[in-house]
Amino acid sequence: MHILILGAAGMLGRKLTHAILAGGLPATHLTLADIVAPPKPARTPATVLAVNLADPGIAARLVADRPDIIFHLAAIVSGEAEADFDKGYTVNLDASRALLEAIRALPGYCPRLVFASSIAVFGAPFPDPIPDDFHLTPLTSYGTQKAITELLISDFSRRGILDGIAIRLPTICIRPGTPNRAASGFFSGILREPLAGLPATLPVPDTTRHWFASPRSATRFFLHAATLDTAHVGPRRALNMPGLSATVADQIDALRRVAGQKAVDLITYAPDPTIAGIVKGWAGNFAPDRATALGFTADTSFDDIIRAYLQDDAPKT
Amino acid sequence: MHILILGAAGMLGRKLTHAILAGGLPATHLTLADIVAPPKPARTPATVLAVNLADPGIAARLVADRPDIIFHLAAIVSGEAEADFDKGYTVNLDASRALLEAIRALPGYCPRLVFASSIAVFGAPFPDPIPDDFHLTPLTSYGTQKAITELLISDFSRRGILDGIAIRLPTICIRPGTPNRAASGFFSGILREPLAGLPATLPVPDTTRHWFASPRSATRFFLHAATLDTAHVGPRRALNMPGLSATVADQIDALRRVAGQKAVDLITYAPDPTIAGIVKGWAGNFAPDRATALGFTADTSFDDIIRAYLQDDAPKT
Repeated sequence: MHILILGAAGMLGRKLTHAILAGGLPATHLTLADIVAPPKPARTPATVLAVNLADPGIAARLVADRPDIIFHLAAIVSGEAEADFDKGYTVNLDASRALLEAIRALPGYCPRLVFASSIAVFGAPFPDPIPDDFHLTPLTSYGTQKAITELLISDFSRRGILDGIAIRLPTICIRPGTPNRAASGFFSGILREPLAGLPATLPVPDTTRHWFASPRSATRFFLHAATLDTAHVGPRRALNMPGLSATVADQIDALRRVAGQKAVDLITYAPDPTIAGIVKGWAGNFAPDRATALGFTADTSFDDIIRAYLQDDAPKT
Repeated sequence: MHILILGAAGMLGRKLTHAILAGGLPATHLTLADIVAPPKPARTPATVLAVNLADPGIAARLVADRPDIIFHLAAIVSGEAEADFDKGYTVNLDASRALLEAIRALPGYCPRLVFASSIAVFGAPFPDPIPDDFHLTPLTSYGTQKAITELLISDFSRRGILDGIAIRLPTICIRPGTPNRAASGFFSGILREPLAGLPATLPVPDTTRHWFASPRSATRFFLHAATLDTAHVGPRRALNMPGLSATVADQIDALRRVAGQKAVDLITYAPDPTIAGIVKGWAGNFAPDRATALGFTADTSFDDIIRAYLQDDAPKT
């Protein structure tokens, strides 16, 4: 089985690659592409490419040898897509469409395509919980670009050009690494930094509720979406992934149970009206009945999410 | 006030032009564009253009003198978009995006844009009635292209590039003229042909329920969307228009009341499984609360729809 991963150098791309190599899928060849070259696997035959999917001819080159499964995780993030209108539409929409068109150009080819979408396709106000049939109401260009790509994937799938699944990922927590400028960054930072003995800032009230999945869950979503029987999915190819609905207070309570009050004491509440305003437009709770019925499963407690982070990602001291 | 109408030679484009010239909007100049030249108005200063919005440079040319209101009705219909993949995406998506980008290229310009969308952005299964927050589930490429354009219009409006409204039109009935090959054509045909003393064929059971608006209502929707205060619309710029939910039996009963049993006797039931299958995926009943609250109003009986057709459109004998 030949597997192509677009966005393979990113955090989720690397974890997905590792999970596949660990036996998550029966890969005989991997093609790993990103704007910077992803690490080359040691044992499984792999092609590693530093390319921009938005450049002319790249999509056609990537699918020319007809990979069986394509994971499309390549994107620029929400903040950058909002700040740079043209770059957002070029990378998040035009490059995705180029990929779909490159697949269409190959007669008889119908790969499984798993697209990393996002709960950013939704914007407030929301019902609680948000049902699977809630309408698309993005409040960012990023969310708009994800929603449009979902619609294209459903139409191309309906026509038999490809066999697509768009998985709407919750906010990934705990993101490993260093703090970034994403408005959602603090959800990971208030756990990750104290676990490393470092101070962290909380910009929103601890009553703020959000929808989370661990990197482990996200990786499981991708693997499951790659192999499930799409006859059970029908024409609506975008699925709200299951997640854990939790408040910041729930996160902090879990941190206290796993790492003690001394970790919690490293968090300082410093209200930021800008971030609070953005976060207020985000979804806090879903009823992801379709995905659950299709066998997708999520984390059940923030204690588990923190322990998984300590096992998988925390810098070893 | 300078008004640009794209798709001005079509049935709704011509009716909208007449309504504006009759005082529906205070037009000082009209630009009427379509793939074939629309009729030139007699009195109001007007520019008439035969152009393809999908051709390079056309969108920029059309908005260069900054019309205050743009009505975008240019599209190829559902059946053709399904039969010709490339033409559908080129005309219904790429040309629409070219229009939005041409507006974006003009600094300080922020026109009202009224886009003719369609209930084809929805596909079965449905709740009854369909609420305003029901998700986008197109089952045709046409519906996909309309849904994508709606999402772009909301994002461009949110960013202040334009001030858009997408109105999701019900099936227009009674369409004047001759029968066409649209799967929905019979909804008009079973009234229009008997009213002219001609036979008509009904391909679906008379229990089939659908969502209708007269050409008069559709014209009113466009005029109202052109002038309403979008501060009351918010970021969700696509609106389900009000309509009349009616079964084929309701249509036929109205025909009997207006034109007698002799007209009804001209209808022959000839089941067509293909058409019945397509129609089964269409919406039959909405609860268009947002549009109603914003002041959009619809027809209240099929008797009125038939009488309006006889006044406005029926061939005079």
